[in-house]
Amino acid sequence: MTEIKATNITWHEGHVSRAEREKLLKQGGCLIWFTGLSGSGKSTIAYTVEHELVKRGHLCYVLDGDNIRHGLNKNLGFSAADRAENIRRIGEVGKLFVDCGVITMTAFISPYRADRDAARALLKPGEFVEVLMDVPIETCETRDPKGLYKKARAGEIKGFTGIDDPYEAPSNPELVIKNGECTPQEAAAKVIQYLENRGLLRAAK
Amino acid sequence: MTEIKATNITWHEGHVSRAEREKLLKQGGCLIWFTGLSGSGKSTIAYTVEHELVKRGHLCYVLDGDNIRHGLNKNLGFSAADRAENIRRIGEVGKLFVDCGVITMTAFISPYRADRDAARALLKPGEFVEVLMDVPIETCETRDPKGLYKKARAGEIKGFTGIDDPYEAPSNPELVIKNGECTPQEAAAKVIQYLENRGLLRAAK
Repeated sequence: MTEIKATNITWHEGHVSRAEREKLLKQGGCLIWFTGLSGSGKSTIAYTVEHELVKRGHLCYVLDGDNIRHGLNKNLGFSAADRAENIRRIGEVGKLFVDCGVITMTAFISPYRADRDAARALLKPGEFVEVLMDVPIETCETRDPKGLYKKARAGEIKGFTGIDDPYEAPSNPELVIKNGECTPQEAAAKVIQYLENRGLLRAAK
Repeated sequence: MTEIKATNITWHEGHVSRAEREKLLKQGGCLIWFTGLSGSGKSTIAYTVEHELVKRGHLCYVLDGDNIRHGLNKNLGFSAADRAENIRRIGEVGKLFVDCGVITMTAFISPYRADRDAARALLKPGEFVEVLMDVPIETCETRDPKGLYKKARAGEIKGFTGIDDPYEAPSNPELVIKNGECTPQEAAAKVIQYLENRGLLRAAK
C-alpha cells in the first residue's frame, strides 16, 4: 500500500472555482459550436483544431455523433422534439465541460437557429463560439463521406437537412469557414487564431 | 490582431487519443461514484477530494444536483423511469468526462443497484470507483442539511430514500466510507489513497 502523505495538508471543503481549473489548465473554457450541412467538414476541422491544441498543451474535447448519439442521446430519434432535445442536451453537456475549463467543440449539423441560440443562451457572452461551415450543398453532396446524400436522394432517409429539411444558417456567427475555399489546416488555423485573439489560449509551458 | 505562428506546423487530422489527454494531464480519467443517503456526506467528501487534487495539479470535476438537475436533467421528475434516466444520463456524461481524462466524481443518492450497475457497465474495469457512504439514517436525519428529512417525515415529500423509498446498498463497492466515524478530511484522504494505489495520480509538477 502506498502511504499517503497527508499529515500536514490543509484541507478545504467547498467548490473549486472554474477560475482555479482554468489557471491549472492555462486556458479559458469555451464552447466552439460548428454548424453546417452533412459533409461540410465540421468534424474534420474540429479534430484538426483538437490535434494542434493538444500538441500545444491545451485540453480539448470534441462532442460529436460518435460519442453522443450512441451514448447520452441514444434514446432520441429524429422527430422535431427529439432533434431539439438532442441539441439541448449537447448544449448542457458542453456547458459542464466549459465549467470544467475544457476547450470544447461540438460537431453536429444543428440545423435550427432556435436550438443553437438556446445552447448559446446557456453560456456567458464570449464563451460560445458559433462557427458556420459555409459550404455549398453541391460540394457536400459530391464529398458525401457517409453516403447519406445518396440515400436521401433515393428516399431512403427522410427529413435530411438540405434535401427535404431546412438548414437555417446563423445570421451572426463568430466565424465563417468557407471550407470549399481553404484546406482543413487553414480553417483550423482560423479557429485557433480566434481563440488566441480572445485570450483563451494562454501559453502552456 | 495577434499573428498565429502556424507557418511550419505539421497538422494532423483524426482524433486525439484519450491516452494523449491523460499524458497532458498527468493523470488517469476515472469516475468516482459516491452513493448514499441524503446527508451522508457525498458532496462534502467529493468537494474535499476535488480541492486537494486540484491543489496538487490534477483536473477534477464534480457532477451533482446543482449542475445536473437544473441543467441537463431539468426535464426529468422523480418517477421510477425518470430516476433511472437521471442516473443513466449522469453515467453517460461521466463517461465523456473520463474519456476527456478528467478525475470525475458524482454525488447523487443513486439508490438503486441496477442503475448504478448500468453506469458501471459503461466504463472499463478499474475506471468506475463506487464509494458507499455508509452512514446510519439516524445520523443523516440529525444532520438534515437541507431540511428534507423533516419534510419527508411530515409527508411533504413522497418517495424519499430511506423513509418511504428503499436504498439498495452496493454489495461490493470499491470503497466504504463510514462517515460517521471519520472526518471529511480522513474520508477524502481514503479516496485519494485509493487513486494513488491504482496509479491514477501520476505526479503533476
